Amino acid sequence: MKRVLVLNSGSSSIKYQLIDLNRGVTAVSGLIERVGENIGARDGRLTQHLHFDDGKETDSREALDIPDHATGFRLMAEHLQDCGLLKDFHDLAAVGHRVVHGGERFSRAVQVDEAVLAGIRALVPLAPLHNPAAVTGLESARDLLPGVPQVAVFDTAFHSTLPARAYEYALPRDLRRRHHIRRYGFHGISCQYVSRRAALHLERPLDELNLIVLHLGNGASVTAIEGGRSIDTSMGMTPLEGLVMGSRSGDIDPAILTYLMAHADLSPKDVSRLLNRESGLKGLCGSNDMREVLRRREQGDAEAALALDVFAYRARKYIGAYTAALGRVDALVFTAGIGEHASPVREAILEGLSGLGYALDRARNAQATGEVSEIQRDDSRARVLVVATHEEMEIARQALACVEGGVTVALPER
Amino acid sequence: MKRVLVLNSGSSSIKYQLIDLNRGVTAVSGLIERVGENIGARDGRLTQHLHFDDGKETDSREALDIPDHATGFRLMAEHLQDCGLLKDFHDLAAVGHRVVHGGERFSRAVQVDEAVLAGIRALVPLAPLHNPAAVTGLESARDLLPGVPQVAVFDTAFHSTLPARAYEYALPRDLRRRHHIRRYGFHGISCQYVSRRAALHLERPLDELNLIVLHLGNGASVTAIEGGRSIDTSMGMTPLEGLVMGSRSGDIDPAILTYLMAHADLSPKDVSRLLNRESGLKGLCGSNDMREVLRRREQGDAEAALALDVFAYRARKYIGAYTAALGRVDALVFTAGIGEHASPVREAILEGLSGLGYALDRARNAQATGEVSEIQRDDSRARVLVVATHEEMEIARQALACVEGGVTVALPER
Repeated sequence: MKRVLVLNSGSSSIKYQLIDLNRGVTAVSGLIERVGENIGARDGRLTQHLHFDDGKETDSREALDIPDHATGFRLMAEHLQDCGLLKDFHDLAAVGHRVVHGGERFSRAVQVDEAVLAGIRALVPLAPLHNPAAVTGLESARDLLPGVPQVAVFDTAFHSTLPARAYEYALPRDLRRRHHIRRYGFHGISCQYVSRRAALHLERPLDELNLIVLHLGNGASVTAIEGGRSIDTSMGMTPLEGLVMGSRSGDIDPAILTYLMAHADLSPKDVSRLLNRESGLKGLCGSNDMREVLRRREQGDAEAALALDVFAYRARKYIGAYTAALGRVDALVFTAGIGEHASPVREAILEGLSGLGYALDRARNAQATGEVSEIQRDDSRARVLVVATHEEMEIARQALACVEGGVTVALPER
Repeated sequence: MKRVLVLNSGSSSIKYQLIDLNRGVTAVSGLIERVGENIGARDGRLTQHLHFDDGKETDSREALDIPDHATGFRLMAEHLQDCGLLKDFHDLAAVGHRVVHGGERFSRAVQVDEAVLAGIRALVPLAPLHNPAAVTGLESARDLLPGVPQVAVFDTAFHSTLPARAYEYALPRDLRRRHHIRRYGFHGISCQYVSRRAALHLERPLDELNLIVLHLGNGASVTAIEGGRSIDTSMGMTPLEGLVMGSRSGDIDPAILTYLMAHADLSPKDVSRLLNRESGLKGLCGSNDMREVLRRREQGDAEAALALDVFAYRARKYIGAYTAALGRVDALVFTAGIGEHASPVREAILEGLSGLGYALDRARNAQATGEVSEIQRDDSRARVLVVATHEEMEIARQALACVEGGVTVALPER
């Protein structure tokens, strides 16, 4: 039985899933919250779901004392064993860790040793909010489960195939090299999952497919995929660049930052916070939640209408830009929270794209559901798909492929 | 005889042209250099050309003492009268001043009075390098030529038709409003000239034409024009955003600025200087001169090849984005120094665009010359034009239209 435990360590949370790769399903999923926060207040929480073919069983524990990640991982281990679905951790083929930033060094999943840990630590300046928690998670899991292979799976790795014309910023070379300034891109794990899924659906080999993937969640990005390889992506050195997001500005005149420092009495830290936390949909209309934006727009709220208009227009421009970059496009793929569930957003993006030949079928769009849906009109230049992403499944697949010596593991059809 | 004197006041220079609008030609052009620099060193310079149908006569004066703009304007006036082509300044229909930034206030050319001067002064924070010299020029010309109407023509005004989805940045509303943060766009005067010229050439009314104008000079921008109106443009609140330029970075992950401040020990001013003066082509390969970039690329220089590749790829993405925004595109228009004269750059941009249906004819491209050339293949989705821009002619036209009470003056065919 090929089973992989997938871990996603945040600064104050741990998400985990026990993935059964034989059946291509999640067996157990869990979330541990408020790790290392309000120590002594006993307000930590664990929620664990057991997934059966005919439904879900949930176990919740509150008022826990979780002073650090190591404690969190011990809690997870106890609950996983108690639930009966994983008696012995040595039954695991691997533990797969989601690591946001692999920098220039990691272009694919790797089994973790001291050198890899040092490499991930060295990338903390590039991902100060994410990589420290990943390192903590890797160390804790290694201590808790000695003998089980630990594999780091990077969200940047898929974009290591970008050509120089797409990853280089027009900055002085010495500065670029010394400070590792280039486009890295993110959401790579999701792109890999949905592009494989799209290839299965379209019954065509991935390495012949040209796709534009719109991962629209609280973070949002667009990626151009040529023959299965990423050739451009809207997020840059950091996840701030590109599309308008929940609270991130996306693309902006860079001179606005220095202008605000000179004229609005903001420090570099203030500006960074402003662009990452107070901008995007939230800056445009006050809410970072697309569901609320859509509700308010329905009620005639002009700011919410503007927010959706800007969001959709920017996405449209990226689709145009990447259509230019790819030449032939076989499918547009919508995924992640907004991409999968917000049909009015898909409609707002597509309705301005008839000049490029993309055309949406409104009825199909409104009915899209499940793993994969096709929502284009029959005369569309390319298919338009809605694909449910499953990053944990992709992490498990890559982790298993890594420990099995690079053998590619086919994604099971569900 | 409709004649307009066009003035372009820089921080240490004055450019002028005497435009004959009846014949649609420049009668006199001049450049005064080192105004207010090295005062007392007598290293100021004036160069004036008289343009005849059969050639050009040049008058150069060196070792001049030009301590301020007022002195420079008096020199200009003397040389203009001495040359015999303008005996009395009261023969001028107007003086047209190029003003870079018109902010949110000026959406078309206006006759200058105290209120207008105050308005242009109030925009100095948005254009600290340009608007102060324009104010000095306006004041000097008014004092020198009382009774001649002075008209301010703005490089931003053409873009006042941008819809909110194109001009709004996803920043908090209060901040946007308080600090006038929005996309303004530049190169508007050039866009207006070349789009009229393109309409004449295509023998179609401007208000039915959809164009993408690539103004590629030392500064570079792309503008989407729908029915003669600007609907999007790549430069933003400042001329830093958008395409890669001679020494400007163009688009960049905004987080790179705060990263450099935190990790490379650079101040906001240092970063601003870096992005405006040391980046772009210069950052990518050491030279800000496209001619040198092309020469070095011919010789096999990898950095120069990268610089051209990044420059062309970014332009291609904007063409794709604006094709998405416009839907139907009647013509791509190349203009300004690089756009008019660098056929290898046009080729590098167009050769990747066949997927969108644009196709270049290499022989026509290599031979493009004169006022307007068509360089597309016969099966291209849209025409591809090379149009020689003439901003002074456009300023003269707008200045005359302004003093004649808003009557539109047709661009004379030359």
